[in-house]
Amino acid sequence: MPPSSSSGMPITRDARARAPVMPIRTGSDAPDSVLMDQNLVQSPMMWQAIGLLDCKTGHAREFSAYPCPVSPSRVTVPAAYAVVVEHLRREIQLGRYAPGDKLPPEREHAEQLGVSRVTLREAVRVLEGEGLVHVRRGQTGGTMIRARGTSAQLRRQVRRRLDDVLATQEFRLAIEPLAAARAAQHRKAAAVRELRTAVTDLTSASDIGTFRRADSAFHLTVARNAACPPLERAVEDARIAMFEPLDVLAFDIVLPSAVEAHQAILTAIEDRDPEAARAAMDAHIRTTTGEIKALFPASAS
Amino acid sequence: MPPSSSSGMPITRDARARAPVMPIRTGSDAPDSVLMDQNLVQSPMMWQAIGLLDCKTGHAREFSAYPCPVSPSRVTVPAAYAVVVEHLRREIQLGRYAPGDKLPPEREHAEQLGVSRVTLREAVRVLEGEGLVHVRRGQTGGTMIRARGTSAQLRRQVRRRLDDVLATQEFRLAIEPLAAARAAQHRKAAAVRELRTAVTDLTSASDIGTFRRADSAFHLTVARNAACPPLERAVEDARIAMFEPLDVLAFDIVLPSAVEAHQAILTAIEDRDPEAARAAMDAHIRTTTGEIKALFPASAS
Repeated sequence: MPPSSSSGMPITRDARARAPVMPIRTGSDAPDSVLMDQNLVQSPMMWQAIGLLDCKTGHAREFSAYPCPVSPSRVTVPAAYAVVVEHLRREIQLGRYAPGDKLPPEREHAEQLGVSRVTLREAVRVLEGEGLVHVRRGQTGGTMIRARGTSAQLRRQVRRRLDDVLATQEFRLAIEPLAAARAAQHRKAAAVRELRTAVTDLTSASDIGTFRRADSAFHLTVARNAACPPLERAVEDARIAMFEPLDVLAFDIVLPSAVEAHQAILTAIEDRDPEAARAAMDAHIRTTTGEIKALFPASAS
Repeated sequence: MPPSSSSGMPITRDARARAPVMPIRTGSDAPDSVLMDQNLVQSPMMWQAIGLLDCKTGHAREFSAYPCPVSPSRVTVPAAYAVVVEHLRREIQLGRYAPGDKLPPEREHAEQLGVSRVTLREAVRVLEGEGLVHVRRGQTGGTMIRARGTSAQLRRQVRRRLDDVLATQEFRLAIEPLAAARAAQHRKAAAVRELRTAVTDLTSASDIGTFRRADSAFHLTVARNAACPPLERAVEDARIAMFEPLDVLAFDIVLPSAVEAHQAILTAIEDRDPEAARAAMDAHIRTTTGEIKALFPASAS
């Protein structure tokens, strides 16, 4: 019995064949949309491998879309550079690299990742095409993580995807309170220390980059301490899906409530109080959802 | 700023170097434990790529363990055969292939997957080493999906991992009722048809393989219709983590309650009643958890 077309969402050959000629845009209203280098992305299947082909529609998708949950019946062996793209994109989306950060010098970075400089360079070109990094040549140059467009651009992008954004918040509400409760139950001294550092960093966050990094560190540390690997991965996936919306909630609006909420979650975990941790995380996510709905009152009911 | 060691669980070089000489066992009490072919698995990092290296302990792990949630700061470019192993393992763990099923003839299968016969053969050797498939040579031969050991062996394995199993049930309780509610909200005729087929198949299931496949089809169809990709993936991951435990709940004990529960969920989705769907899925998972606890009364409290 051959496996049926996996999750029932086959990528048709036609869709595959169509994909490479579609422009990848950093947002439908972004001024600097770029056409992907046709020589670089030779194979349509590569597009799926590097997450640029939407599994459901078969169309090229915007770079912030979800990782592909379907396993098509054909396997795709990713090229080295595509693996590097996926790795770095994830680091950026999880807030481990923030806007304005510079990647290490090419030689050093390639060595650190364990890939060739040619492979790294190809990967950086793709990320540049996606608008995630900006390469400045010359002596003072380097590869910088780009800011995520103007606030107005980001807002338009989130408005278009509002159903997805609210679905992700609903998903977070299902999983993150559980993660907090379990982290409290399995309370470890190292976790408490890490969470305290994240709260301190959040308190002193001075821009969207430092805010995003401290916020991510907090939520991922909670998830990692929940002692349930599929739950940890789910929190990471939700985080990645929220990459744009979280930046829209301009950090100076959200900051005070976020610091207070994170402090309450930290205290409950420190006190080994699962129910308090669950309630504090629940309240925190509901507050964020409320903030999103307040920003987009027309469509959100 | 270089990314910190990702989720803070670095795989040390020592651990990596140690891994390949450890035997991969199909269970600590399985009689047919095998030593992995040293020539096949040349690189320790490959072990992680193909999911046999536990990220937390740095030790080789049993094949049923969770997919690795960590992205180490070194990237691992998987070999073609490792990608095929991952793909087929997932198909088996998601119940799309069931015990006793035969894989398509090598030439046809390789073509279908889009890989070379040599690559497919290497992948099948790994799966054979993991005890997931059995290769019979000769004219009437072929690659068969293996049954998962005796009931007694499986029980011992689950007993040892009981904390993980109950954690996964807790995770399922957080996400699957949400998936059911959202599937009811977004009710589609095609989904209802697929769910009805799965219930019919479940009703007529005559062995663990057909049971597992129909059960998986039902839960994954619900998840796919929840219109939230990270949620869909979370249900898949939980399913994979429950691969062994679900087989332990001998299908003739579970079957009547499962058919009834699935029918109730289907009816609620058909009726576009999110709250009824949520409640029915919630009750179904609580019942399964109860059945697991009843099978292992000593350790589960």
